[in-house]
Amino acid sequence: MSKVGVIMGSTSDMPVMEKAIEILKGFDIEVDVDIVSAHRTPEKLFDYAKNAHTKGIKVIIAGAGGAAHLPGMVASLSPLPVIGVPVKSRNSIDGWDSVLSILQMPGGVPVATVALDGAQNAGILAAQILGASDKCILDKILVYKEGLKQKVIEGAKQINKS
Amino acid sequence: MSKVGVIMGSTSDMPVMEKAIEILKGFDIEVDVDIVSAHRTPEKLFDYAKNAHTKGIKVIIAGAGGAAHLPGMVASLSPLPVIGVPVKSRNSIDGWDSVLSILQMPGGVPVATVALDGAQNAGILAAQILGASDKCILDKILVYKEGLKQKVIEGAKQINKS
Amino acid sequence: MSKVGVIMGSTSDMPVMEKAIEILKGFDIEVDVDIVSAHRTPEKLFDYAKNAHTKGIKVIIAGAGGAAHLPGMVASLSPLPVIGVPVKSRNSIDGWDSVLSILQMPGGVPVATVALDGAQNAGILAAQILGASDKCILDKILVYKEGLKQKVIEGAKQINKS
Amino acid sequence: MSKVGVIMGSTSDMPVMEKAIEILKGFDIEVDVDIVSAHRTPEKLFDYAKNAHTKGIKVIIAGAGGAAHLPGMVASLSPLPVIGVPVKSRNSIDGWDSVLSILQMPGGVPVATVALDGAQNAGILAAQILGASDKCILDKILVYKEGLKQKVIEGAKQINKS
Amino acid sequence: MSKVGVIMGSTSDMPVMEKAIEILKGFDIEVDVDIVSAHRTPEKLFDYAKNAHTKGIKVIIAGAGGAAHLPGMVASLSPLPVIGVPVKSRNSIDGWDSVLSILQMPGGVPVATVALDGAQNAGILAAQILGASDKCILDKILVYKEGLKQKVIEGAKQINKS
Amino acid sequence: MSKVGVIMGSTSDMPVMEKAIEILKGFDIEVDVDIVSAHRTPEKLFDYAKNAHTKGIKVIIAGAGGAAHLPGMVASLSPLPVIGVPVKSRNSIDGWDSVLSILQMPGGVPVATVALDGAQNAGILAAQILGASDKCILDKILVYKEGLKQKVIEGAKQINKS
Amino acid sequence: MSKVGVIMGSTSDMPVMEKAIEILKGFDIEVDVDIVSAHRTPEKLFDYAKNAHTKGIKVIIAGAGGAAHLPGMVASLSPLPVIGVPVKSRNSIDGWDSVLSILQMPGGVPVATVALDGAQNAGILAAQILGASDKCILDKILVYKEGLKQKVIEGAKQINKS
Amino acid sequence: MSKVGVIMGSTSDMPVMEKAIEILKGFDIEVDVDIVSAHRTPEKLFDYAKNAHTKGIKVIIAGAGGAAHLPGMVASLSPLPVIGVPVKSRNSIDGWDSVLSILQMPGGVPVATVALDGAQNAGILAAQILGASDKCILDKILVYKEGLKQKVIEGAKQINKS
Repeated sequence: MSKVGVIMGSTSDMPVMEKAIEILKGFDIEVDVDIVSAHRTPEKLFDYAKNAHTKGIKVIIAGAGGAAHLPGMVASLSPLPVIGVPVKSRNSIDGWDSVLSILQMPGGVPVATVALDGAQNAGILAAQILGASDKCILDKILVYKEGLKQKVIEGAKQINKS
Repeated sequence: MSKVGVIMGSTSDMPVMEKAIEILKGFDIEVDVDIVSAHRTPEKLFDYAKNAHTKGIKVIIAGAGGAAHLPGMVASLSPLPVIGVPVKSRNSIDGWDSVLSILQMPGGVPVATVALDGAQNAGILAAQILGASDKCILDKILVYKEGLKQKVIEGAKQINKS
Repeated sequence: MSKVGVIMGSTSDMPVMEKAIEILKGFDIEVDVDIVSAHRTPEKLFDYAKNAHTKGIKVIIAGAGGAAHLPGMVASLSPLPVIGVPVKSRNSIDGWDSVLSILQMPGGVPVATVALDGAQNAGILAAQILGASDKCILDKILVYKEGLKQKVIEGAKQINKS
Repeated sequence: MSKVGVIMGSTSDMPVMEKAIEILKGFDIEVDVDIVSAHRTPEKLFDYAKNAHTKGIKVIIAGAGGAAHLPGMVASLSPLPVIGVPVKSRNSIDGWDSVLSILQMPGGVPVATVALDGAQNAGILAAQILGASDKCILDKILVYKEGLKQKVIEGAKQINKS
Repeated sequence: MSKVGVIMGSTSDMPVMEKAIEILKGFDIEVDVDIVSAHRTPEKLFDYAKNAHTKGIKVIIAGAGGAAHLPGMVASLSPLPVIGVPVKSRNSIDGWDSVLSILQMPGGVPVATVALDGAQNAGILAAQILGASDKCILDKILVYKEGLKQKVIEGAKQINKS
Repeated sequence: MSKVGVIMGSTSDMPVMEKAIEILKGFDIEVDVDIVSAHRTPEKLFDYAKNAHTKGIKVIIAGAGGAAHLPGMVASLSPLPVIGVPVKSRNSIDGWDSVLSILQMPGGVPVATVALDGAQNAGILAAQILGASDKCILDKILVYKEGLKQKVIEGAKQINKS
Repeated sequence: MSKVGVIMGSTSDMPVMEKAIEILKGFDIEVDVDIVSAHRTPEKLFDYAKNAHTKGIKVIIAGAGGAAHLPGMVASLSPLPVIGVPVKSRNSIDGWDSVLSILQMPGGVPVATVALDGAQNAGILAAQILGASDKCILDKILVYKEGLKQKVIEGAKQINKS
Repeated sequence: MSKVGVIMGSTSDMPVMEKAIEILKGFDIEVDVDIVSAHRTPEKLFDYAKNAHTKGIKVIIAGAGGAAHLPGMVASLSPLPVIGVPVKSRNSIDGWDSVLSILQMPGGVPVATVALDGAQNAGILAAQILGASDKCILDKILVYKEGLKQKVIEGAKQINKS
């Protein structure tokens, strides 16, 4: 069965990254969570990225803050699509460092970057990637989008009542 | 057969976006190219995005500059994964407007954003997304990555000779 | 009678946007408020923008945050003047994303952008637009401006007393 | 007959600002052009802004670069809607100074800001403001928008032929 | 006797601007404080700036936030040196708007800009300007600088003791 | 007789800084020009700044680019008013480094900062500072300002003829 | 024995800078701490920087905020390697001023800049510099890096348990 | 004998990086140059960084542009001091991405960052690091600094003659 790998540089990134995990579980997609630090455990990064595609993982979500090298280095080592989540960590300069060091990858090594702290969207994007070849997940995404719409329509009703 | 849709807001984006097309053709992936402007042809945008997934398209690459709404609006209307290419167009403020209006999507509607003018990476990412369920494409990506490596190693040899 | 449409992407934008509504009501201008999300209810966006000018609406005020596509997409679909309010939403990068994705519209499709969280000014601007052909509203604006002046003069008196 | 006033801080702003004039003339709207410098001719600025609404002018377009005070000062003195065009002048810091000193007006005194060097859109916006009470101009705007669409459709045809 | 004029756009700027007043009073320099809003009381701005140099004022300190036009407009109308204090007001975009709209004045009309919220330095600078022709004030500045030095040396002693 | 000192970090800053010299000579003010590098000739910086006020210099204009420490260090060592000119040097990051390292001085040590490459305004400001106690220079400034106005009025005539 | 000099512009920088001291003490490296303000005690800065290398100091760590001239001026006067710590002080513009005025040194006078508020890394870097010629310190750094790794591996275990 | 390793992500970085090599050769320091791409040759990066300190290399200079991960990843894997040179590469967003992804390293893994394109300073800094334990190199640095001073003094003479 297809799995999504969710990794982050530090346990302190978990409050942001757990939104990706929730979304994926909501779509009944298996999730494999780990802490992998590009700068503190580079060997683990190598092992993880080199082998993920041989272990049933189809998409990797990587979150990191500051000079965030985790998503790009995983993308360098793995043939899988890598989704990068810039995290606005404590010492980040308003998130600009996280965003630019994930987004601005050189030609040849893409990272699919989502918004600052956008782990929820990383989860949805991973589901969409699996959905590209899995009609069942594609249908769940259509239902999910319908749910987003209903919430807005509810909100509009509240406004117009008041 | 799986296809990738490549759209852009204006023919003036073609010099940037054709790098995505070249990459995909190099991977023998069928490409469907069109000009769709969020602001000048909103009805065409609606038709395109609503129906792409019913026409064999599995991934959409959308490029635009300035207040770049095309990738986000397509993502709003389609269940497919959408890759956004921020284009540094003539009137852009150094590309920041293109980057931020594609990247900073709200929760629920992701756009997989690549680097400024990063159409080559958009092509590779689309191939990786198809490769998530297509062993043959995955293998081509591994070969492609090997090619990148060889070029660097050649460069290193030149440097050390001189 | 002339109406101003006030729309926003989410009920969470209401604390900012209600300042536009207050101003307009203070000028005795009829206001039509709705929640319309470019990314979650794109069909509603289409209906709203396509038809507003046929329902007595003369000016549209649209507020949104992050990758804020609502004002620009409404401007794309409606012949009416559209005023955009960049909202500094929770996940915005200090408001820059909201500002740039509303302001930097391509040639052909203007959005009259006001300051970050500047809904009060959006309301005044809408009144000025109606006032361009309505002497009665123009006079109210002159009175309003006189009021602003008096408040500063009061402040100056306080300072000089102390 | 309704007129639009187009002013700018220096003759060097003309290459940018003439796009507003062209658009307005294309809509058969009378244009009144002048050079008014907030910093070099403050008295002329006062006279112009105080009296414009008494001379048949219904909308003012003001362009300026750097610490661009012209649009805001005119808005301070006139009850008319003022459209500000940030000009990327020679000594501007990439246009940021022009944009921020026009956009970020305090509560009470709006300037309808368009994109950097966006004089074309300033012209269209002025037409839309007049169109809010002039069915004939509104219809011209609908035709203009249709023209924008046709150009994109032509471009799409070219792409698909090649 | 020489006076320094201290003006600001709103009473809400007083907590920042009073540091300039304190410094000047500490140097026994007469201070003339007023509230003058470029956007809400433009006529008062005109009167103030046109006449300040005829009333014994030798230097003007002007503080404002957001699209801060007060210092530049006073500099436009007065032959006196004008010191601008960018104030980080509530709706400012991190202070960048205040800084750029005061600093980036066009050729011919300088504003002596100090740091964001740097009213203390505005006061010292005004004293230095008077000190350029007043030996007594120059000597007080030398004493003031000596005081700054002593505080650092005290701090160093504390550190080395602990 | 009163003199203005004009210093810069490198001869490569001269094309920018000579505009200050021209302005001052145009006002018949004596100018003392020198190359003083904070980073390459720190001892000369010390000598210069410590003694300038004993040699008839009343105001110092200091220009520098990148991590521009010259104006701030001179201000640290001299009781005179120091005007800082941020120079957009070859390796500067769009001028932001020059601007911020001159403008953002700590409390106690002001630098009167002018616009990026704004040496012309530095010259005018120095004249205004001398003019605070010299009626003759004040009058020349009034004449200079009148000249600026006439040029704009000429420009306006050209526009209206064409 | 080799010593590291740790200086800062103000006692208010101590909460940030003490992390450098802790790290160095943890490596049993002697530390010499002092308060040296570029702008308030320039003479002390001169004495310190001119003589540090004659007193057993091998590396200097200098922390400062805003227009942070201390690291660069020390680098100008000393032949020793200087590590600069940009401090996000109270009046800093989000830390950008501190970063740019330390990082962007002209050719000839390097400052080894670490992250905003990155004093911990400044301490490690100083140890690495001493370790370049001291096998004993080099070994301690290898142990320190191993400790960083273990903490991440512990964190990963916690995640996988839960 | 002590060596400095100079690596860069691509041969296209050579025009910037050769200034580091020139400086080091001018100090008679042995240089080991190589092309190592974090994203295209991650295995080579690992080998290089893991083993550099066992091969006589005492300091590593690493240059890269865009999402520049090379310096940080080398710092992660090597106990040696690593100097990072942000390169303003063709697709960089004005150099900000290069600067932030090198500078903003997390606690525990420093990179000694120099100015954008500041390879000359990287070479000097490497010499200073070796000079911390090598009197002969320290003396050469003192001579080099004297040379910088003489060039400024020559420049000052030229100015004063003209």
